[in-house]
Amino acid sequence: MIVPRIIERKRDGGRISDAEWHELINAYTAEQVPDYQMAALLMAIFFRGLDSEEMYALTDAMLRTGSVLDLSQLKVPRIDKHSTGGVGDKVSLVIAPLVASLGVAVPMMSGRGLGHTGGTLDKLEAIPGFRTDLDLGRAKAQIEKIGCALIGQTGEIAPADRKLYALRDTSATVEAGPLIAASIMSKKLAEGLTGLVLDIKRGSGSFITDERSEILLANAMIDLGAHRRVPVVALFTAMDRPLGFACGNTLEVIESVAALKGHGPPDLMRVTYALAAEMLYLADKVSTPNDAWPLLRKAIADGSALRKFGEIIEAQGGDARVIDDPHILPTAPFCADYLAPRAGYIARVSPRVVGHGIISLGGGRRTMDDEVDPAVGFIIPVKPGDYVEKGEPIGSTYARDEKGLAVGAAALAEAIFIADSAVAPLELISHRVTSAGRDKWKGPAE
Amino acid sequence: MIVPRIIERKRDGGRISDAEWHELINAYTAEQVPDYQMAALLMAIFFRGLDSEEMYALTDAMLRTGSVLDLSQLKVPRIDKHSTGGVGDKVSLVIAPLVASLGVAVPMMSGRGLGHTGGTLDKLEAIPGFRTDLDLGRAKAQIEKIGCALIGQTGEIAPADRKLYALRDTSATVEAGPLIAASIMSKKLAEGLTGLVLDIKRGSGSFITDERSEILLANAMIDLGAHRRVPVVALFTAMDRPLGFACGNTLEVIESVAALKGHGPPDLMRVTYALAAEMLYLADKVSTPNDAWPLLRKAIADGSALRKFGEIIEAQGGDARVIDDPHILPTAPFCADYLAPRAGYIARVSPRVVGHGIISLGGGRRTMDDEVDPAVGFIIPVKPGDYVEKGEPIGSTYARDEKGLAVGAAALAEAIFIADSAVAPLELISHRVTSAGRDKWKGPAE
Repeated sequence: MIVPRIIERKRDGGRISDAEWHELINAYTAEQVPDYQMAALLMAIFFRGLDSEEMYALTDAMLRTGSVLDLSQLKVPRIDKHSTGGVGDKVSLVIAPLVASLGVAVPMMSGRGLGHTGGTLDKLEAIPGFRTDLDLGRAKAQIEKIGCALIGQTGEIAPADRKLYALRDTSATVEAGPLIAASIMSKKLAEGLTGLVLDIKRGSGSFITDERSEILLANAMIDLGAHRRVPVVALFTAMDRPLGFACGNTLEVIESVAALKGHGPPDLMRVTYALAAEMLYLADKVSTPNDAWPLLRKAIADGSALRKFGEIIEAQGGDARVIDDPHILPTAPFCADYLAPRAGYIARVSPRVVGHGIISLGGGRRTMDDEVDPAVGFIIPVKPGDYVEKGEPIGSTYARDEKGLAVGAAALAEAIFIADSAVAPLELISHRVTSAGRDKWKGPAE
Repeated sequence: MIVPRIIERKRDGGRISDAEWHELINAYTAEQVPDYQMAALLMAIFFRGLDSEEMYALTDAMLRTGSVLDLSQLKVPRIDKHSTGGVGDKVSLVIAPLVASLGVAVPMMSGRGLGHTGGTLDKLEAIPGFRTDLDLGRAKAQIEKIGCALIGQTGEIAPADRKLYALRDTSATVEAGPLIAASIMSKKLAEGLTGLVLDIKRGSGSFITDERSEILLANAMIDLGAHRRVPVVALFTAMDRPLGFACGNTLEVIESVAALKGHGPPDLMRVTYALAAEMLYLADKVSTPNDAWPLLRKAIADGSALRKFGEIIEAQGGDARVIDDPHILPTAPFCADYLAPRAGYIARVSPRVVGHGIISLGGGRRTMDDEVDPAVGFIIPVKPGDYVEKGEPIGSTYARDEKGLAVGAAALAEAIFIADSAVAPLELISHRVTSAGRDKWKGPAE
């Protein structure tokens, strides 16, 4: 294998064989192929793409560099949900206990905040004592016992993907569709799933901002899943504004607990139910996704979803009192409202600006080594289309110090745009994609 | 400067500002930007290109990382010739003393063999004692004294280009037009030139194999030159077959000396005269390039070009007896003719196959650290279009051992293709490109 010739072939529109992918990924993981050759190849892939066979081979090669969760002895279906990332997206914290409380195993491996987006691990770690660094043996035991584990990508899982992911992040090749699909699937296939629900975020706050790329990614994931006999269903959901009201780790845990008590913001509840319904559908618990909604509402109403969250927190070393008393979470000493500078319609709440605002407050990462301050963030109770009066509170900043309040106010002023007339935001949930094709999403009436 | 954002911008079709180019190239040279980020950027440039301003800034930034030859005190014009590389291309060895003997300073900085092509430095170093590693101070003194120095790119000259060139070679980004242009010009501008003649090789044996890229490169070089007030003229010459008969370092030195005595192969003489005529034209020695031909023929006929070559060899520590006695050069102990396997017309003499054949004989490099054996190579006295009888000698292999003879014969059998009817090769010199545009080349009749 002469690496520059492989790069050249991909650069000129050719393909890389199965054997070459395996050799290349193994050699890269073993540090026998330098980062600069891989970076040039990744950029060539950004422009030239990968065909299905290449994606299968790359995913398989990455998967095989590590271990997998062997859950084949488990008698219940094993379903995970994955989101392409956004701001205020705390769905994982709600959906995992909710679906697990209905007899479906949820082996969920999540990530940390990246770019302007938040990460499930950071949110969970806002809960005092909560450990996300379980090894696969302990995760397996926990899933067998309580049906769910919420863990990070351990060193055991697809080390090639970890290495490639870090390289992509620093070489501006994150946005390549086939690389995103292969990266996600190499990890998800390591979870020993029987089905996967994908939340593809749309709009200005997502990493993928054009419809063609959204469809390509959904189809690539479905294709990769089918190749490994793991059915995949994708929903397209709006990320042109934050999801829910809370943005910031502690604040999002509080909102997640509220959602598990049935008091979450309407958009968060609806997206959570829609994705959870697909999980139950893939688990064969219902014959159509819409049939799942009553079951889901019941699991919230009777407290079983909330109790499951408590079990998970306890099993992972966290302080489960959080479900009754959010004040045990790290809180920000400073808080101030942001008032509407004029009357009018909310035309935009920019997730990117909000996300970068959280980073400026110390609640996100600039580099992977940064510590995050879980307490800081924003509550933004307005949504595009809402009418507001001048002077009405339309956001709050939670900050570590006075300076943070000023930083937060500036971020909110930039993020929230008020116009004379209402502008239509993206549909909250627009499409459903399965191996049978892409359709308008039709959920129960609101 | 956040490098991933710069890569991303170029990747998405945007441009990099002058200040960013300078900061980026300086940081890369100081090893503050890792190779993998630069490799990703180079690949993005391969796909997206650079505009004129970006090329100026990149070239200028590379140039400024090193020193320049300050020849501004010199009262004579300073003109160099640069070729994009080929097989059997020993023009530099002939043209430098030829033009210098006519009162034009020739500060020539050359390279080593790369890929299947030969390099002027390797050819010169076949001459016992010849030193190409002069520092700029010594090169300047030699140019002031005898009007010419034939040197390699020292560490003083554009270190950013050296680093980038090595990276491009191993990351499959050599073939990007704007990078080729900026790389060449960052070195040539360091020679303190008042004019530059460019030999753009065309056809299967060149690095650039489509007409659009040839024209883009010529225009980019002319544009870069104009920006720095260095007029550039480009000729397009044929590299669908080797130039001259000799291929291999010792053999090419012998052929160059023959050319300086007026006995070179017709194609080598014609290309040398055409390029030299442009050099005299840019030096204001004549009012049209064609007016220069009689001067050039005279400098060959009266021995002044040959004497100048002797002066250069002596000044650079070489054994100048080579101009009278080629037997002092390292010679190959084994030599065998290759006979035409059939009668017919020579349809092809593949420069790439010949070049790789030289490498197989030990006369070229696989990696930049390889030692070359100057003695080995080929003499191929036939040209496309020639009629040959079966059994007629149409090539000779010069090898280190018996095994080399077999390797050489196999290479010649693959390189030379004999057909039933004559096929038209590329025109030897097809076009002339200046800042005024691109025209058919019109030299004196043969």
